[in-house]
Amino acid sequence: MTQIYNFSAGPAVLPKEVLQQAADDMLDWHGSGMSVMEMSHRGPEFISIYHDAVRDLRQLLAIPANYRILFLQGGGLGENAIIPMNLLGRAAVQPATIDFVHTGSWSGKSIKEAARYANVNVAASSEPGHFTSVPPQQYWKLTRDAAYLHICTNETIDGVEYNFVPELPGGTPIVADMSSHILSRTVDVSKYGVIFAGAQKNIGPAGLTVVIVREDLLGHALDICPSAFNWKIVDEHESMFNTPPTYSIYIAGLVFAHLLRQGGVAAMEKRNIEKARLLYAALDVDDFYQNRVAPDCRSRMNVPFYLRDETLNEKFLAGAKARGLLQLKGHKSVGGMRASIYNAMPIEGVQALVDYLNEFAGR
Amino acid sequence: MTQIYNFSAGPAVLPKEVLQQAADDMLDWHGSGMSVMEMSHRGPEFISIYHDAVRDLRQLLAIPANYRILFLQGGGLGENAIIPMNLLGRAAVQPATIDFVHTGSWSGKSIKEAARYANVNVAASSEPGHFTSVPPQQYWKLTRDAAYLHICTNETIDGVEYNFVPELPGGTPIVADMSSHILSRTVDVSKYGVIFAGAQKNIGPAGLTVVIVREDLLGHALDICPSAFNWKIVDEHESMFNTPPTYSIYIAGLVFAHLLRQGGVAAMEKRNIEKARLLYAALDVDDFYQNRVAPDCRSRMNVPFYLRDETLNEKFLAGAKARGLLQLKGHKSVGGMRASIYNAMPIEGVQALVDYLNEFAGR
Repeated sequence: MTQIYNFSAGPAVLPKEVLQQAADDMLDWHGSGMSVMEMSHRGPEFISIYHDAVRDLRQLLAIPANYRILFLQGGGLGENAIIPMNLLGRAAVQPATIDFVHTGSWSGKSIKEAARYANVNVAASSEPGHFTSVPPQQYWKLTRDAAYLHICTNETIDGVEYNFVPELPGGTPIVADMSSHILSRTVDVSKYGVIFAGAQKNIGPAGLTVVIVREDLLGHALDICPSAFNWKIVDEHESMFNTPPTYSIYIAGLVFAHLLRQGGVAAMEKRNIEKARLLYAALDVDDFYQNRVAPDCRSRMNVPFYLRDETLNEKFLAGAKARGLLQLKGHKSVGGMRASIYNAMPIEGVQALVDYLNEFAGR
Repeated sequence: MTQIYNFSAGPAVLPKEVLQQAADDMLDWHGSGMSVMEMSHRGPEFISIYHDAVRDLRQLLAIPANYRILFLQGGGLGENAIIPMNLLGRAAVQPATIDFVHTGSWSGKSIKEAARYANVNVAASSEPGHFTSVPPQQYWKLTRDAAYLHICTNETIDGVEYNFVPELPGGTPIVADMSSHILSRTVDVSKYGVIFAGAQKNIGPAGLTVVIVREDLLGHALDICPSAFNWKIVDEHESMFNTPPTYSIYIAGLVFAHLLRQGGVAAMEKRNIEKARLLYAALDVDDFYQNRVAPDCRSRMNVPFYLRDETLNEKFLAGAKARGLLQLKGHKSVGGMRASIYNAMPIEGVQALVDYLNEFAGR
């Protein structure tokens, strides 16, 4: 088998070591005679898997004791509705207003969904510049008494990443969609009210959503919030009010343990900075390729780029595939190419892509 | 390793052949160089897995062409809210009323959840008899112009299974929670408006919900219904509006293909009848054990039973475990024991349990 490097934006590459462990455990986890998929979520075997996963994630992100870790279902899109249904009950002003910063496709989807439940105020938008930057906070028009501010700290499709944490007056909670860069860099969790992430980038399989929520934000759900997605109920049952996605939690736990062995998030961040530097440098040599994002807002995880001559797109992708460089086609909404270089992408994979970029450009 | 038989109510035993295939495919699915967990849901590899799963499920249940198959997240509890949010927009009378038949723990949960969104009418209840039967339809007090009737055709905790399909006047749709017996017996899908099932019993891993819905019931969602759970939107995107739980769908697909190779649902039903006959016969020998469900309503999948002398419970469970008979403890809400004998439980497992029942009773 040729060495493959998988640049999918998600579901995405996982550490080989994790997959090997999953294969080894598949028919018999730790001598239990059962696959993890076959275990009751209420049994001691799965409870231990759950506790280890929560403990390791808490350590990886240095999550303070007054934050709860929830394992939910429904992905980022589901959470876009679940968040307002959980938080709007505490709004001081009714009808409530939610502030958003519109920096690309994912924050756009969040705005659309939240509008079912509250007024939405787009405090700032980089749409006029085609989502190639994050508007500096000095230009945001925030609402007094907003229920919360929702931001997407890494736009998977547009390749735009925050390089600052907003500072809000009056204690308005910040809700951050970190789906596509969680665990890729250190984060001061205490600056946020809620952090959420679909698992299928840096955590594990699709079908698991991780929510990290400050305790005082629990217990304010609207009556229309389904019990299975009510954070307070889910928290009280240690994510087992509903049967949780047990196998996805198990894989996430293997990834967390793997990251700890690799030196944790700080070590990953160092590698990710180097990987991103390498790739952007190759794109920036001349104008054969273009990444259009402002340099200080370029994502370390998702690197969209365009060939100057787009008639070469198919040839580029075919050549990449022949070299084992997979899933480089850009999202259909923006076209072009995209290389997602998550934690599990080794630097050798980025180097192989860089070599191909240079070769294809005739350098 | 001792031969293990896993009687968990869910997540539950899966076919060994399916687990072996999953282990073999884990690092490299069909020479793609990728694990199924690492595949983009929009790539040709996963799309083929999805199409095969849908095709095989349609064949297994003989699902008519005017029914859609959706893969969702949130489990049975999530669906209890998602169903009214999807169906109440078509109610002829407002405020809408939903009819329920209360036959145990799961229909009870459905009633509680639906009350967030509509009036609920409990048309019949077997609660006075401690949920040991299904009230015959002649005693149901149905609402004229109900939005729909919701039933749970197999109560996982109470071990009660419908042996008839309700016939409703006026075309009121029947919504059936078949979570714990789907694919265990043939079913006339055309009699139902909606059939739904959490996957973690007869289908695959927890974290996948299968919804089978008649086309004319799509497109009636309330405004508060999250897009990710709006059946019409999910259907229009072939279950990929949101990133679906791809790995769970893959495992479900392996189970579907396995069932077809075993002769399909009719063959499973024949085996399940025999397995249930064997187990209930052993429980009925004398009053050492008791199953309290009316004989014509006894579930073929979930067999709760009590020891006459409940001080022997721990000894019974320890002896069972020593013989590789796992997860026989009853649900905490009802106590006692429960043996779940889903499709993937071989008759040898049931025979091993019967042998132990006889031995423990000193027969």
